[in-house]
Amino acid sequence: MNFNGLNQEDLQNAFSNIKKKCLALQREKYSLDISRGKPSEEQLDLSMGMLETLNKTSQFPKNADYRNYGFLEGVPELRSLFASILGVDKNNVFLGGCSSLNLMYDVLCKAWCFGVLGGTPWCKLPKVKFLCPVPGYDRHFSMLEQFGIEMIAIPMDDNGPDMNLVEELVANDVYVKGIFCVPRFSNPTGIVYSDEVVKRLATMKAAAVDFRIFWDNAYCVHTLYPDAPELLNIFNVPDAVPDRVYLFTSTSKITFSSGGTCCLATSDKNLQSLKKFFSIQTINFDKINQYEHALFLKDAQTVKLLMERHASLLRPKFEKVQEIFNDNFSDNSYVKWTEPRGGYFVTLYVMEGTAKRVVELCKKLGVTLTDAGASFPRHLDDLDSTIRIAPSYISLEELEKALNVLVVCTEYAICEKLLGVNS
Amino acid sequence: MNFNGLNQEDLQNAFSNIKKKCLALQREKYSLDISRGKPSEEQLDLSMGMLETLNKTSQFPKNADYRNYGFLEGVPELRSLFASILGVDKNNVFLGGCSSLNLMYDVLCKAWCFGVLGGTPWCKLPKVKFLCPVPGYDRHFSMLEQFGIEMIAIPMDDNGPDMNLVEELVANDVYVKGIFCVPRFSNPTGIVYSDEVVKRLATMKAAAVDFRIFWDNAYCVHTLYPDAPELLNIFNVPDAVPDRVYLFTSTSKITFSSGGTCCLATSDKNLQSLKKFFSIQTINFDKINQYEHALFLKDAQTVKLLMERHASLLRPKFEKVQEIFNDNFSDNSYVKWTEPRGGYFVTLYVMEGTAKRVVELCKKLGVTLTDAGASFPRHLDDLDSTIRIAPSYISLEELEKALNVLVVCTEYAICEKLLGVNS
Repeated sequence: MNFNGLNQEDLQNAFSNIKKKCLALQREKYSLDISRGKPSEEQLDLSMGMLETLNKTSQFPKNADYRNYGFLEGVPELRSLFASILGVDKNNVFLGGCSSLNLMYDVLCKAWCFGVLGGTPWCKLPKVKFLCPVPGYDRHFSMLEQFGIEMIAIPMDDNGPDMNLVEELVANDVYVKGIFCVPRFSNPTGIVYSDEVVKRLATMKAAAVDFRIFWDNAYCVHTLYPDAPELLNIFNVPDAVPDRVYLFTSTSKITFSSGGTCCLATSDKNLQSLKKFFSIQTINFDKINQYEHALFLKDAQTVKLLMERHASLLRPKFEKVQEIFNDNFSDNSYVKWTEPRGGYFVTLYVMEGTAKRVVELCKKLGVTLTDAGASFPRHLDDLDSTIRIAPSYISLEELEKALNVLVVCTEYAICEKLLGVNS
Repeated sequence: MNFNGLNQEDLQNAFSNIKKKCLALQREKYSLDISRGKPSEEQLDLSMGMLETLNKTSQFPKNADYRNYGFLEGVPELRSLFASILGVDKNNVFLGGCSSLNLMYDVLCKAWCFGVLGGTPWCKLPKVKFLCPVPGYDRHFSMLEQFGIEMIAIPMDDNGPDMNLVEELVANDVYVKGIFCVPRFSNPTGIVYSDEVVKRLATMKAAAVDFRIFWDNAYCVHTLYPDAPELLNIFNVPDAVPDRVYLFTSTSKITFSSGGTCCLATSDKNLQSLKKFFSIQTINFDKINQYEHALFLKDAQTVKLLMERHASLLRPKFEKVQEIFNDNFSDNSYVKWTEPRGGYFVTLYVMEGTAKRVVELCKKLGVTLTDAGASFPRHLDDLDSTIRIAPSYISLEELEKALNVLVVCTEYAICEKLLGVNS
């Protein structure tokens, strides 16, 4: 609804109506969760065929018994596939276990304990800082927080992080050692970094020679529409600073979220150094799983077709979000939201100072959202306005219910604020 | 042969004969590898059925879609199975990825970066020391070396490490933070820690409250003979110091070496703390693989039967080692070896000062052994006499050839030494 130009009495009436709606919703005793970017059961079903790629009589490639120890960098078949998807050389691809988050953690941890390419271990420095484009992925921030790394929030717009600010900080502060980016269908806004932003990230001057970009390309092939914006290949930027980028991706939202596989792509020099460290940590990651992925996903074209099937399951949900927000918020000047063309999230910007309250009200009505503030380092959303919506997991019907609750709670909090009511 | 009482001329003649044998062996152009404890192809074949435990139409337990995110501590079915094998409570079992080495690394790394149960992070201490029973597992030592942890070699006998020395060091040096043990069928000697040793380890006083035992029970069910000695359950020792033990094991040598699964068992308090750290590192490890293991391995009895099939493939190889060493070395006072009742290794003690030379000579004749010294921290085998034999991987026929080369090279090096020949 439109709150503009309402006098105190109109507002009171509106609030009464909204309260009635709340009471009605409370009687429904919902238990709905749109907090995490989890694939739905139907999406997971798309990859059940992977469980039949190997059987009792399967043969492994000659001189490459993937059941046994070895192949630290992963099975060549899947390295090639990731290489073709990411537009990098196969030799620059290193496969991990089932979690790219874990691989990022490992790479960060090695910098922390042992330093980057012979540099001082970060744990030995008086401080370490990372740039954190916001709103961003809460698990990146939790990781940095665990290591006691200082996080500097960098505002984002539709093109990516504020590059003037990024360049200034990176060029002048030797303790700024990295930046975490989700460059395509950013978590949670869904924006895609512009070519200009990618170029500036790749080429900007850094005070720290061991400054690294953690390029979490989690949604590299996760488009909802054929016209979704492409991401510039950061490895192909002319005059890019060598060894700057660690690219990560995974199949957690291609095949199975638990039981997928993941990879790191980086320069020869970075990879050579990391492999030395990884060779002490493990003999190899799970090559059976990697090989099953290679057999199931086959090639970039097969992956594309699979992702289209994912998109056809996800699209109605994302469109339901747009529909309900349009229906209810199009004339509400306090509310905005993003319209992603891929990825797993929509960001809802509610009235400033009410996000925490909206999440709390939803909780009371049985709808779980990501904690307000979770998309910010140390949960500090100064404007208290950002809410992450993850529509993928629940059914369309349930999603509609959850969103209706969210709409009512958003309006409830606006009324409270405008009326100066303390709840 | 017997070298005792040979005069110079006898020795020269013996050396000539041995040299002739070497020349003949050189012409065989062998390429044989007994350096690593890898299962053979036939052993890996025993678990091919695991690849058919799940298929396109498989259902997952109610409210537990193992394909999706969640269950940080692993699937309950496999936690129960490990618990029953290890004699611990299911709630004290935490499942990892495919490598127990990686899990040890993670646990060590968390102590290094963040400290143990609120203690000072080990990376912030002026030094950290670990006790290393020798000969021991080279990958443990490489891990400690990577972190810059000082390694103190502790001699072992048939009962385990020298406990007087261990107790003295642990009681008096606050920088002694841990010890790595392979308590059953120790790598590489194959000995089993005596009850007395286990009890003393569990109950001894430690200067450091964050002293931890890394109990790498890699070969917990890996017996070659039904009468193989049992290991006392370290968690059941009366008056044990609380929170002292991290127990690790894996299925790398039960199912697949790459593509197995692993676990950590430890106290409530340790596990609670570690889970907080692990929850930042990953959302979960590979639950599909864990569930496949649970379905395939079923229960402790099924595991026992599978291990008997492994044993029946391994036993002839271990017996071949004993046979050839007995035939050739029984009257050789310079040579000794171990007779393990389980595990993956036999240790050969050659004449002091010749182990490196023997490995080098074998290499020339096409037989790869683990580097001499690898079983010691920083590869420092002061006596230069320990050689690790891993007979599991190659065929019985090839093993016989490799061992014959080893025998000749061992005798060659003795002749060189006794004759004072510089080669």
